Amino acid sequence: MITDGTAVTREDVAAAARRIAGFVLRTPVLEVSPGLFMKLELLQHSGSFKVRGAFNRILSAGTLPDSGVIAASGGNHGLAVAYAARTLGVRAEIFVPEVTSPVKVAGLAALGAHVTQTGAIYAEAAEAAAKRAAETGALSVHAYDQPEVIAGQGTTGLEIMEQTGGVDSVLVAVGGGGFAAGITLGTGDAGGGGGPRIVAVEPELIPTLNAALRAGEPVPVGVSGVGADALGASRIGGLAFGVLSGPRVRSVLVPDEAIVAARRTLWERHRVVAEHAGAAAYAALLSGAYRPEDGERVAVVVCGSNTDPAGL
Amino acid sequence: MITDGTAVTREDVAAAARRIAGFVLRTPVLEVSPGLFMKLELLQHSGSFKVRGAFNRILSAGTLPDSGVIAASGGNHGLAVAYAARTLGVRAEIFVPEVTSPVKVAGLAALGAHVTQTGAIYAEAAEAAAKRAAETGALSVHAYDQPEVIAGQGTTGLEIMEQTGGVDSVLVAVGGGGFAAGITLGTGDAGGGGGPRIVAVEPELIPTLNAALRAGEPVPVGVSGVGADALGASRIGGLAFGVLSGPRVRSVLVPDEAIVAARRTLWERHRVVAEHAGAAAYAALLSGAYRPEDGERVAVVVCGSNTDPAGL
Repeated sequence: MITDGTAVTREDVAAAARRIAGFVLRTPVLEVSPGLFMKLELLQHSGSFKVRGAFNRILSAGTLPDSGVIAASGGNHGLAVAYAARTLGVRAEIFVPEVTSPVKVAGLAALGAHVTQTGAIYAEAAEAAAKRAAETGALSVHAYDQPEVIAGQGTTGLEIMEQTGGVDSVLVAVGGGGFAAGITLGTGDAGGGGGPRIVAVEPELIPTLNAALRAGEPVPVGVSGVGADALGASRIGGLAFGVLSGPRVRSVLVPDEAIVAARRTLWERHRVVAEHAGAAAYAALLSGAYRPEDGERVAVVVCGSNTDPAGL
Repeated sequence: MITDGTAVTREDVAAAARRIAGFVLRTPVLEVSPGLFMKLELLQHSGSFKVRGAFNRILSAGTLPDSGVIAASGGNHGLAVAYAARTLGVRAEIFVPEVTSPVKVAGLAALGAHVTQTGAIYAEAAEAAAKRAAETGALSVHAYDQPEVIAGQGTTGLEIMEQTGGVDSVLVAVGGGGFAAGITLGTGDAGGGGGPRIVAVEPELIPTLNAALRAGEPVPVGVSGVGADALGASRIGGLAFGVLSGPRVRSVLVPDEAIVAARRTLWERHRVVAEHAGAAAYAALLSGAYRPEDGERVAVVVCGSNTDPAGL
């Protein structure tokens, strides 16, 4: 049981896996070449990993208020909360910034959520959502900085270790850091601090973790570029930073051109349609921003596909 | 060892699996809902299952002539042969009919194959390829009616049984019948005639198997509709018919509208981009053309993605 937000543990991830098992997909892993695994989390319900945290947060809450659940999101988290709420028969109110793609806004409406589009970036939508939550009493489901959300996302890490038989490194994209923090916990040894290296990949234009590691604490950064609608947090989450500042994590930046090229290669070579943010981790590998050693077993998480495939 | 074309066996499929293991992907299976499995064979090298048969045929041949390999194809088989030839450092000459999509022709050129586009339908391209093969002495790799090709495609069936832990039925699209025949063999019991039901799905507009079953022998049918570039054989293969006329196989037809709807649903609900022919098996399930019983464990093979995603 999570009692202290600063101490999400591998046991919380394991408990989340049991809690959400009937509600999320165990997404497949494809061994693209010997020792190179793709975790196809983009095939998840609602098109991204975000349902894992959403279900874990909502199912952990016990009885819900009549006002249901509320969330702010660049899009994927909102889709996930809307999907989870519809599955559980709960009202959902979602705040998205103006940068959110039309594909995602249409998806939210199709899931029956009440959508408010406000603010230039995620942080402004989040502020509006927090104000509204205080009025209605709805359960707030944070996009990344809640223990139950981090534990839920971390179930992806448990699956990676089971499905690959173990890897030396995991490449994962970082926005607010909830997914990468969860995966760090979920791939960790049950006993202690060991586990694969976590390569935390960010666009150069949104370096929330990289800047925080340099500063020694979460600091605000600019938010722009092709990943902005899904990796649009302007500051790494405090809980995530607590995990991602550990010794297993390496921060890597990639330029937008590398992300665009990786998204195209995912389609042309692997028949996988990812959104830009979902291709960021693969971009680190393709561009050489991260170079595995000979024989290193590598898992790349491809984590979102809420995109218009016409752009390919 | 295959010595008699009329008697491809499960052992031939097992031998093919060993032969091609280093060259093809073990494509992932996604359990979409309890007991409903999607075999994501569209993530295979070259974008379809066809590489399995191509590698098995070429690797079984021993020393190859300097003229390399030759094939006729609606597109996917040609891409597969070109991919296999490039991998093995062999020359490839591919004949495709005019109905072949620009995406596939471009893909063939990118793989370094020598492409000749001729004839209105597959059968005419196949005739031209046979004539050319007689001149050059190149190894002919048939799109469906060769024992090594059927055995190679059947490795998909072995994987389905291993990855799902067993199913009651497998839905698979039928063109010339090599894939469905291989899967029938590959999913069969090692000892004898048992195994899951094979639901052989065809577009109403290209009923090669359905018409053959009615006639009691392979007969020519019309070739039109959305699946024509990949399911464009105008007659079921003789070897395939020998397998698919057995008691485990049920023939099902689907209208083109159901295929179009299934392709769209695969993207919208499952984030899988299939070509029309690759969505035909799923169309039988979605449209109710095949209705599983309560508790029936079903595998649907999604088998090709050589398509322009802009059409989604």
